[in-house]
Amino acid sequence: MRQRISLVTLGVADLDRARRFYLALGWRPSPRSVEGEVLFFDAGGTVVALWDRAKLAADSGRRDSGGWGGITLASNVGSAAEVDRVLDEAATAGAVLARRGAATEWGGYSGVFVDPDGHPWEVAHNPDWFLDPDGAVRLD
Amino acid sequence: MRQRISLVTLGVADLDRARRFYLALGWRPSPRSVEGEVLFFDAGGTVVALWDRAKLAADSGRRDSGGWGGITLASNVGSAAEVDRVLDEAATAGAVLARRGAATEWGGYSGVFVDPDGHPWEVAHNPDWFLDPDGAVRLD
Repeated sequence: MRQRISLVTLGVADLDRARRFYLALGWRPSPRSVEGEVLFFDAGGTVVALWDRAKLAADSGRRDSGGWGGITLASNVGSAAEVDRVLDEAATAGAVLARRGAATEWGGYSGVFVDPDGHPWEVAHNPDWFLDPDGAVRLD
Repeated sequence: MRQRISLVTLGVADLDRARRFYLALGWRPSPRSVEGEVLFFDAGGTVVALWDRAKLAADSGRRDSGGWGGITLASNVGSAAEVDRVLDEAATAGAVLARRGAATEWGGYSGVFVDPDGHPWEVAHNPDWFLDPDGAVRLD
């Protein structure tokens, strides 16, 4: 199996609400999205999809526990100030801040916002990770 | 906010068990992993981490519902035969197959395996998406 994630699908209760939220963060859906059904975002080699959560549960063969299920996403940025800027942007777009920006025990700076469907995003600055100009993260 | 995912962290109950599973799929951890604490996998511009699920819940400011929480990952491959091959590989490594490989209503072919911590991976062939030789997906 290739060491890659091709697609991350976020189950949503209300596709319009989720769309408005991610568009308010500056994201732009792909023309391959299917209006009213599924939104795709080209995210630099990985695709992010927004799709009905009940359909996703059925398609994944999972019982929906209804809350958080052990997966957290992160968006890495170039500085602590940018962490705070993105957290502010998310809060303005309607996110709940689960954790305000602060220094971390691993030597960086991060905070967490939660999207309208309960999916948490850590916004992080990790001075030890390489961030390409196009946003790709490289560890080595 | 940049239209990117830098990091996907999968919460695990037993790091050694999760490590064995992903290594059996051919994944190789980054030297930046912290032995016994967190494993990082360089996944082509996005990093996949395996970390203690209870710590991840606390760090994400989320109550753990204990099951699936509305996020499914996918690995896209070049053919239906390769879907079946990866599903077999995952089953041999200890995954449960939630859905065997079969034609999909969107014109492709896919199946789903569930990792030892309950995280589902769809393995898919989508003839309408571009798959670069290095595994990057491009929609347009």
